Amino acid sequence: MNYFSSSFTLGILGGGQLGKMLLYETRKYDIKTNVLDPSAEAPCRIACDHFEQGDLMDFDTVYAFGKKADVLTFEIEGVNVDALEKLEQEGITVYPSSETLRKIQDKGVQKQFYKEHKIPTSPFKRYKDKYHLNEAIVRKELHYPFVWKSCTGGYDGKGVSIIRDAEDVIPLAEGPCIAEKLIPFKNELAVIVARNPRGEVRTYPVVEMEFHPEANQVEYVICPARIEPKVAEKARAVAKQVSETFEHVGLLAVELFQTEDDEILVNEVAPRPHNSGHYSIEASYTNQFEQHLRAILDLPLGKTDSKVGGIMVNLVGDEAHTGDVKYENIEKIMAMDGVTPHIYGKKQTRPFRKMGHVTIIDEDINQARKVAETVKKTIRVVSE
Amino acid sequence: MNYFSSSFTLGILGGGQLGKMLLYETRKYDIKTNVLDPSAEAPCRIACDHFEQGDLMDFDTVYAFGKKADVLTFEIEGVNVDALEKLEQEGITVYPSSETLRKIQDKGVQKQFYKEHKIPTSPFKRYKDKYHLNEAIVRKELHYPFVWKSCTGGYDGKGVSIIRDAEDVIPLAEGPCIAEKLIPFKNELAVIVARNPRGEVRTYPVVEMEFHPEANQVEYVICPARIEPKVAEKARAVAKQVSETFEHVGLLAVELFQTEDDEILVNEVAPRPHNSGHYSIEASYTNQFEQHLRAILDLPLGKTDSKVGGIMVNLVGDEAHTGDVKYENIEKIMAMDGVTPHIYGKKQTRPFRKMGHVTIIDEDINQARKVAETVKKTIRVVSE
Repeated sequence: MNYFSSSFTLGILGGGQLGKMLLYETRKYDIKTNVLDPSAEAPCRIACDHFEQGDLMDFDTVYAFGKKADVLTFEIEGVNVDALEKLEQEGITVYPSSETLRKIQDKGVQKQFYKEHKIPTSPFKRYKDKYHLNEAIVRKELHYPFVWKSCTGGYDGKGVSIIRDAEDVIPLAEGPCIAEKLIPFKNELAVIVARNPRGEVRTYPVVEMEFHPEANQVEYVICPARIEPKVAEKARAVAKQVSETFEHVGLLAVELFQTEDDEILVNEVAPRPHNSGHYSIEASYTNQFEQHLRAILDLPLGKTDSKVGGIMVNLVGDEAHTGDVKYENIEKIMAMDGVTPHIYGKKQTRPFRKMGHVTIIDEDINQARKVAETVKKTIRVVSE
Repeated sequence: MNYFSSSFTLGILGGGQLGKMLLYETRKYDIKTNVLDPSAEAPCRIACDHFEQGDLMDFDTVYAFGKKADVLTFEIEGVNVDALEKLEQEGITVYPSSETLRKIQDKGVQKQFYKEHKIPTSPFKRYKDKYHLNEAIVRKELHYPFVWKSCTGGYDGKGVSIIRDAEDVIPLAEGPCIAEKLIPFKNELAVIVARNPRGEVRTYPVVEMEFHPEANQVEYVICPARIEPKVAEKARAVAKQVSETFEHVGLLAVELFQTEDDEILVNEVAPRPHNSGHYSIEASYTNQFEQHLRAILDLPLGKTDSKVGGIMVNLVGDEAHTGDVKYENIEKIMAMDGVTPHIYGKKQTRPFRKMGHVTIIDEDINQARKVAETVKKTIRVVSE
């Protein structure tokens, strides 16, 4: 297909921030885009050629939208997979495929897939509802502590809990879930993998999530991860194995644990550009959004190396503020070398609401880390 | 002023490719944009918040458009300066200012300005029309060879001729012009300078135009220029002097000659993002479009260093083709490491029409130069 022609159209399900950053890249290649999103104020609205407002989980809406595209992709996992499958049957190119998305949408199915294909992951059990989970605890088939995950709908830490005693079980949701063995780990890592339909695969360098020592929240996403080269190599190899086993097409963000014994375990994956890859806009030869496009359009993949070290800090709403947003001290951080704020354009801030991110780049990753700390101490997302 | 708020609007005169690349950066800061362009199919149309079709040289149109903006800028010099001046008088912030633009629009005034402020430039004479030019030749006040430049309206090599004999004089335009001494030079260089209203100034590294040995056309724009450090230093100092002398606000692309004696002479300037700065999208800490925004919004300027070496090649229509455009072998160049095509989205190609550009980056500028040559030999802009 000639992507560089005016008759080609890319459909994107979801019109949020990830979609918006993807749209910048479509402009570089002059690709026509349609976007579907439930919100009339979706960030993509003014950046695409044609915008439709509609429910991403509704079969008819997704199907009708997809019929107008040559290639269809998504920037969010919560879309109607049956519609994608029907579109594929009718000759529309859908990447990532409905088959992969179906496996990834259900965490139980996803874990089972890893187990069947000998992809290293923590031991787990599936339960079809809370009744069966309770039963397993009572029968002493399942022991504290364990990690509970809802099979569907969890994101950004929602739908995941560490269960240490009976007290922790009470608030859990009723639906299907898994219980994973709680494995102490040294590092939480991630590797972004790109794969195109002709089977070309490229992995990005390993990124490291640095947690706040008390709050147990990711503070910095650091690329390259400050780990031994042989651990990094292993992490990239495992991530590549996951992408190839799924026969995935597009970007796959693979979240990993580095255990105390330097084993690499797959935690979970996201079949799309990912927060852990935002650093790539400033730091990589080919940023993750351009790479996703190259992959789904069956173009040659770009170089995944970094030009410089990169660190990403999420910009979240201050705990004590709700209302019209104001970015306190943004000019101060912009005066620091190698600092780029990305403002998502949400009008209202709320405690912990994700309002943007800041990338800090430097040839020396330790210098970038120092600047990142100053950035974090300086900027505040407050209300006016 | 709080630029990071929904009530702020940036107006941009001109909706072409430069404007489009500027608009990507406004998204990063979530800045609301209005664009005015004479063409209903301007590239900016779908990338801005609000588009107006209208004549950039018409006083009333520009004035009415400008009244709706908090800050007004332009991506093309051919705009109605009287309207800008009136807007400034009425409190609209216009950057670059009408005063600077007026000086730059007329090449005679521009040259005179350099002379008055002791900015090195080649010797010249101004003539108010062709009649007076002819008279100077007849009276032997002006000798062959010389460089003829039309005072207004010249761009991309139009409005400039090397005059070697009487034959060359015949086709020249009637209007006001200058005659410059023809000075043999070693290199054609350019330096981009950013300056904000508070007077902070930063220069980018020197770029070098490498010409085709026979065709006398720029083939490669190379950053950093392959020149001696002390020459580069002098070039950056002269460019800085130009920006400061104009009290310029925004980006200023300063085109320079390096003479046989390593003198630096100012050729001419462009008060906006420039072709010679396109490499910065991939290679610089802060690309020229983000830097222009930072400057005109009185934000701190970003770091101008390069992360890697960068080379830009223009993509122009093949001599033998007119019609619906096709980018032959684009996939082949995309398979080369560090190569990014930028397709401008023009539907029709014509001989030598500027259809896009390609950036080649590498840590090693000599390696980038090799790849650039392969790129140039591989891709062709033809008709279907």
